[in-house]
Amino acid sequence: MKDHVYKLIELTGTSSASIEDAVVKAIRRANKTIQHLCWFQVIDTRGSLRKGKIHHWQVTIKVGFAVDN
Amino acid sequence: MKDHVYKLIELTGTSSASIEDAVVKAIRRANKTIQHLCWFQVIDTRGSLRKGKIHHWQVTIKVGFAVDN
Amino acid sequence: MKDHVYKLIELTGTSSASIEDAVVKAIRRANKTIQHLCWFQVIDTRGSLRKGKIHHWQVTIKVGFAVDN
Amino acid sequence: MKDHVYKLIELTGTSSASIEDAVVKAIRRANKTIQHLCWFQVIDTRGSLRKGKIHHWQVTIKVGFAVDN
Amino acid sequence: MKDHVYKLIELTGTSSASIEDAVVKAIRRANKTIQHLCWFQVIDTRGSLRKGKIHHWQVTIKVGFAVDN
Amino acid sequence: MKDHVYKLIELTGTSSASIEDAVVKAIRRANKTIQHLCWFQVIDTRGSLRKGKIHHWQVTIKVGFAVDN
Amino acid sequence: MKDHVYKLIELTGTSSASIEDAVVKAIRRANKTIQHLCWFQVIDTRGSLRKGKIHHWQVTIKVGFAVDN
Amino acid sequence: MKDHVYKLIELTGTSSASIEDAVVKAIRRANKTIQHLCWFQVIDTRGSLRKGKIHHWQVTIKVGFAVDN
Amino acid sequence: MKDHVYKLIELTGTSSASIEDAVVKAIRRANKTIQHLCWFQVIDTRGSLRKGKIHHWQVTIKVGFAVDN
Amino acid sequence: MKDHVYKLIELTGTSSASIEDAVVKAIRRANKTIQHLCWFQVIDTRGSLRKGKIHHWQVTIKVGFAVDN
Amino acid sequence: MKDHVYKLIELTGTSSASIEDAVVKAIRRANKTIQHLCWFQVIDTRGSLRKGKIHHWQVTIKVGFAVDN
Amino acid sequence: MKDHVYKLIELTGTSSASIEDAVVKAIRRANKTIQHLCWFQVIDTRGSLRKGKIHHWQVTIKVGFAVDN
Repeated sequence: MKDHVYKLIELTGTSSASIEDAVVKAIRRANKTIQHLCWFQVIDTRGSLRKGKIHHWQVTIKVGFAVDN
Repeated sequence: MKDHVYKLIELTGTSSASIEDAVVKAIRRANKTIQHLCWFQVIDTRGSLRKGKIHHWQVTIKVGFAVDN
Repeated sequence: MKDHVYKLIELTGTSSASIEDAVVKAIRRANKTIQHLCWFQVIDTRGSLRKGKIHHWQVTIKVGFAVDN
Repeated sequence: MKDHVYKLIELTGTSSASIEDAVVKAIRRANKTIQHLCWFQVIDTRGSLRKGKIHHWQVTIKVGFAVDN
Repeated sequence: MKDHVYKLIELTGTSSASIEDAVVKAIRRANKTIQHLCWFQVIDTRGSLRKGKIHHWQVTIKVGFAVDN
Repeated sequence: MKDHVYKLIELTGTSSASIEDAVVKAIRRANKTIQHLCWFQVIDTRGSLRKGKIHHWQVTIKVGFAVDN
Repeated sequence: MKDHVYKLIELTGTSSASIEDAVVKAIRRANKTIQHLCWFQVIDTRGSLRKGKIHHWQVTIKVGFAVDN
Repeated sequence: MKDHVYKLIELTGTSSASIEDAVVKAIRRANKTIQHLCWFQVIDTRGSLRKGKIHHWQVTIKVGFAVDN
Repeated sequence: MKDHVYKLIELTGTSSASIEDAVVKAIRRANKTIQHLCWFQVIDTRGSLRKGKIHHWQVTIKVGFAVDN
Repeated sequence: MKDHVYKLIELTGTSSASIEDAVVKAIRRANKTIQHLCWFQVIDTRGSLRKGKIHHWQVTIKVGFAVDN
Repeated sequence: MKDHVYKLIELTGTSSASIEDAVVKAIRRANKTIQHLCWFQVIDTRGSLRKGKIHHWQVTIKVGFAVDN
Repeated sequence: MKDHVYKLIELTGTSSASIEDAVVKAIRRANKTIQHLCWFQVIDTRGSLRKGKIHHWQVTIKVGFAVDN
């Protein structure tokens, strides 16, 4: 049985819609250049305000993926 | 005036839909066997990825309920 | 180039609908009396339960705004 | 020499009198249904306010007890 | 059903008597200028020493109060 | 596709041999009364000393298991 | 002997020069409207980048001041 | 004006009476061998249980004292 | 004297044998593609369970390496 | 309006001069190979000592940059 | 019944063999000059790398011992 | 190859000049009575205010030194 190794990278996704959508944006970007995405963890949830309203949700996640060869 | 005592248990709800839905799933399960549910706290928000997309949101909460007799 | 100073205040927004809506409620209230709102950070996500269901999401945020004169 | 295993549960005791009394209330409740209580750790100290005064101290503790058989 | 918004402020109460008394002092001060105090959380417990004895307990709390209009 | 719910309990395993053995002891005990154990997380690593040597490793873990019905 | 009460507010000072200067900027601003400033604690040190260089140090502090009457 | 240097040591005081008394016990012991005690910070509050009751409060503090010469 | 710059990456090593072996697996993988590995820090220790036994230790580390040119 | 995605990397800059200079060194190195650097956060401040004096400040930062395409 | 006071000191043990061995090395050293060692807590687990392999495990612990007279 | 053991002590250096200078002050004091100082870590950065200005920076560090014999 093989013992896998995973790498974790940290991404901040942004969205004017919702926390979930900001995470989806970050995952979608990671998926463009990284294979074997396995899991994510939400690290920080922030946002920018403009004219007294939420302009962007900014959600920072760690994304784990297998790096075996 | 009575001084209540509460117990907190830790649950991880999962949902393919949203963070809120994962919490609702965990609360619904707790409500099947526990009475007097009072409050919850979100402890950790994670998720599993499959084919580069979010497969499941995994939200860990603490649920507090009265244990007086 | 001017060096700005910002103040951060802590608010708990509540909503029966969603985490995002609770944050929006807190921001909307801040915007009534404070100008130049710039950013927010989610500090804590909790909720009250009634009859085994989520009664209110309670989301505590820090809101930053410029206090220059 | 036997290697023991312990379980930790989390309780919130409340008291209008003091922090110590809130902990005592939680321990007393645990002792009704659990044997071999060994130790506790204070996790969180909060309280409710009514008419500008402390209504209840709410002290959350972890209680450890032996679960060997 | 109305969704309330709460503000949290941070205060350090001091007392030569006890932790509880330092919290009471901070709450009493808050109650002079703020209505609708709802809850508090103990953030930090420190103290000053003089001649090898406790001179003052210094207890920092967050106090939450309703800011609806 | 079903959305599972998991419960997490906290256990302290002890061993005079190693950190890993203390965890194994805690897992073995959990497995006696709980089915569907899924994962664990190490929370705290401590130990007792006797005559200047390690008497027991005390490793606290959270154990997660499925609670669906 | 009087038991003082202190309030803590959170400020983010910015400076293109140094961490210390960002703190000084925040303190100077607080001193314009608040008397009896007593102490500060550095909470977070960040910065903005422009053209690959530090544009602004952003240092968040808590400032404590006496609120007795 | 002289710039002082302080050393911090960590002590656990125990008491069957109260949290405050456990801290007092630790301070009193420190005062036997250390001069110029200045301040303390409560780091951890635990306790041992015997026969279902609190046997000892165990309060860990850091004590700061001047070490100038 | 040159001032070095280091980069830190985060890896999760897995092993059915031990915590140390999981770390070794992660380091060995890093060493395949990165030169000048300098240090590591253990960030998180978890594991998966199968049939009531530890299936894999999952140890997350940060690995630091020199990135000078 | 486009929703950006950012990546965060972790670097340790070193300097015999100051905390700020160690950060500058890390940013300068990042800027050699990464475009669109946006912000940084100080994570850890340490240093090495030689002959009883500070040999190097070692400041670990996270650097965020846009990864849109 | 006597209320004991304990002192905690912080040590970093190193070992090329294992985490447990690094802790044993630190305890053994403490035992040379300190009597009545009672318990330890693992605070940090790190290590140095040389030629792509673990050179030393570096485990930082707090050791508690009775200081009564 | 010898496995070293290190001790860590905690010091608060103060300076009216800068954060770095407060650390230097603490290191210089440690060097008077301790040999083989190896590294330090910044734990906390605070300061006292007088007449609305920074009176002293107070920087708490841990200092590690070899204790082999």
